[in-house]
Amino acid sequence: MELMDAIRGRRSIRKYTDDMPSDDDIGYILEAARQAPSWANTQCWEFVLVTDAETKEKLATTLPETNPAHKAVTMAPVVIVVCAKKGISGHFKGKAVTDKGDWLLFDVALALQNLTLAAYERGLGTVHTGFFDSRKAEEIINVPDGVTVVELLPLGYPEKEGRVTPRKEIQEFVFYNTYGRKEK
Amino acid sequence: MELMDAIRGRRSIRKYTDDMPSDDDIGYILEAARQAPSWANTQCWEFVLVTDAETKEKLATTLPETNPAHKAVTMAPVVIVVCAKKGISGHFKGKAVTDKGDWLLFDVALALQNLTLAAYERGLGTVHTGFFDSRKAEEIINVPDGVTVVELLPLGYPEKEGRVTPRKEIQEFVFYNTYGRKEK
Repeated sequence: MELMDAIRGRRSIRKYTDDMPSDDDIGYILEAARQAPSWANTQCWEFVLVTDAETKEKLATTLPETNPAHKAVTMAPVVIVVCAKKGISGHFKGKAVTDKGDWLLFDVALALQNLTLAAYERGLGTVHTGFFDSRKAEEIINVPDGVTVVELLPLGYPEKEGRVTPRKEIQEFVFYNTYGRKEK
Repeated sequence: MELMDAIRGRRSIRKYTDDMPSDDDIGYILEAARQAPSWANTQCWEFVLVTDAETKEKLATTLPETNPAHKAVTMAPVVIVVCAKKGISGHFKGKAVTDKGDWLLFDVALALQNLTLAAYERGLGTVHTGFFDSRKAEEIINVPDGVTVVELLPLGYPEKEGRVTPRKEIQEFVFYNTYGRKEK
């Protein structure tokens, strides 16, 4: 698939069929994540692939009922629990070196953008689910100290096509040479 | 370009030629960024495209001499100063709703992964530069309250091919059903 077709075509998918993605497809999307750049190439991301129904049920309880992805976590054949090692990205000799603190959200997202594009190429849907009780999720999958759960990412074949959501026009978020200047 | 060829081929580029990317190429990579998903579709990213030599010189002073991207900021024909509106991503009704606080790093990175892949497709190099004095950069480009500078992203034609950096093997960062379990 052409890069821009993947970038333009990917949608957030919240309803899935029961069909399990093949090992080959899962390997492909993990390879895409693996290739992402990261802070000083530290690769702080870790993924727990949950297929066990009971664990998925428990993970679903970490989401507020109001989260539109609530059902997706039990419905999807795979839930990727996206973890990250803390205190590495954005750090030098154990200390955060910028005003942003830990850059783990940044590096994890670079990897996840690759992963979700590769999933789309293979006909698989995903949805970023960040609004949940991560502490509770960390207990459910036994995450050790020093590691945090960033998000839950359901993965599976879409039950139907995803909805197109609007985007800002380029001129709404791009400036030239100084903040706010619209002229080149 | 095939999606996986872009994902596998992209490198961090720190030396650039003087050639200015075309408006068409810049429009293409901004379109790629624009298509990224974000927290409740809030699209908190903003980009200031700096081509003015004096401003680039000033921005270079915000990097420590030890940052290997130091020279890239003056050498590249364009420096994208990547900004984000604070207090939107990861928030609901003005309050952070997760233990991660502001998710702006996450959403900005989703957009930047699209952007850097699209740049690579057009023959352009980039390098994430997060280790610098963002407060000083915010003054240089007159960023208002409520907006932060996340990173500097030099953009231009590579002077030479980028170096391949090693990646962890998949089995080093993937577990099954519970943290640490290597068997499916």
